[in-house]
Amino acid sequence: MPRSKKAVCLLSGGIDSTTALAVAKHDGFELYALTFRYGQRHVFEVESARRIVSQFQAKKHLILDIDLRPIGGSALTSKIPVPKDRGAEEITSVVPVTYVPARNTIFLSYALAWAEALNAEAIFIGVTAIDYSGYPDCRPEYIAAFEKMANLATRATTEGGLTIHINTPLINLTKARIIKKGIELGIDYSLTHSCYDPDEKGRACGRCDSCFLRKKGFEEAGVVDPTIYIKLKRKT
Amino acid sequence: MPRSKKAVCLLSGGIDSTTALAVAKHDGFELYALTFRYGQRHVFEVESARRIVSQFQAKKHLILDIDLRPIGGSALTSKIPVPKDRGAEEITSVVPVTYVPARNTIFLSYALAWAEALNAEAIFIGVTAIDYSGYPDCRPEYIAAFEKMANLATRATTEGGLTIHINTPLINLTKARIIKKGIELGIDYSLTHSCYDPDEKGRACGRCDSCFLRKKGFEEAGVVDPTIYIKLKRKT
Repeated sequence: MPRSKKAVCLLSGGIDSTTALAVAKHDGFELYALTFRYGQRHVFEVESARRIVSQFQAKKHLILDIDLRPIGGSALTSKIPVPKDRGAEEITSVVPVTYVPARNTIFLSYALAWAEALNAEAIFIGVTAIDYSGYPDCRPEYIAAFEKMANLATRATTEGGLTIHINTPLINLTKARIIKKGIELGIDYSLTHSCYDPDEKGRACGRCDSCFLRKKGFEEAGVVDPTIYIKLKRKT
Repeated sequence: MPRSKKAVCLLSGGIDSTTALAVAKHDGFELYALTFRYGQRHVFEVESARRIVSQFQAKKHLILDIDLRPIGGSALTSKIPVPKDRGAEEITSVVPVTYVPARNTIFLSYALAWAEALNAEAIFIGVTAIDYSGYPDCRPEYIAAFEKMANLATRATTEGGLTIHINTPLINLTKARIIKKGIELGIDYSLTHSCYDPDEKGRACGRCDSCFLRKKGFEEAGVVDPTIYIKLKRKT
């Protein structure tokens, strides 16, 4: 029997990170899910992450409190309004105010620390550089540079014979292909949460960049969108 | 008048980070000091950092709470005993249990986030690869890899024309040369704290690796050591 391989999986509770975790499961890894409360506007993401961890029987789920609000510079961690009703071209042409400075670098750094402590050879992150918001820390050249740095950074990788691989199974997939892959892997996407600006019951606004990309993904995949959206008042 | 240059300075409150901050001040940077409460055994480091920030008139001091204890794997964030009475050879021959997994990577990631939010071109970190504990994340090749990754990671460095430089002014200096440099720059080292295992009044144990390197540094620099050590009971 082969030894169990361990993977630290960054899990926000959205479509992409959930699908990346399902890929890690399918590839035979023992799952160590890592979720952050970083001062984002709402906690529905974290609740989604808990449900997904339960469904996929992760070995452990670490939820870390790391308040990024004092650093500033983002609509997701401050009172800057979240942009609404932007089209595909606008979303991908300029990095939006929902960008959080160095967020993936901070998340991957914690993942690296945990991977070292666990002696885990794999980190999974659900970045995609296709249907995305143009965030620089989702691109392949960034991930490659992080991986190189990571293997120079730790005792386990410099003295202990461990090589850590940053796995990005979605990086070249459209949102529609991600959703199709996830459904093959048994994901119930009604458990996931994407909206940047939900109401108090967790219903999605349907108008932010994240909702836009999510809706477009389900449409293009030909899959019924299970998201519960806020019902907009009709003009009379 | 030249525009003010901003530097994010990682400041633990020990000799090295304090000296790196003094170098940044001397080089004309406006100082943004960044200190972490990461679950270390005591808070004397943070108190030292506050005094140093005050002496060097930093523009801002951010103290972030980031609990690394759930990640595990270190004597500094757990109840594993801190090693005592080791000699120079033993200290530098193997990475000790006081190593914290990926700590500098996590600290530098936050520094990167703040540098982006401030539009700061410099990050200062007081790593040294000479009189040190063999931590892999203190070596020049690691710092170079982090800097490369950092410039691929952020909006400011990919779209905004910012280039971030990780400054390591002490990396090739012995502890004695660091201390001499610091005294030239006006540092009062009695404000700093190095000991991993102080008593309840903050007095240094005099026996951990960090105390060993500190004492050796003052001796070799020919400078009176201002540290207050716990008085050891004489054998009768």
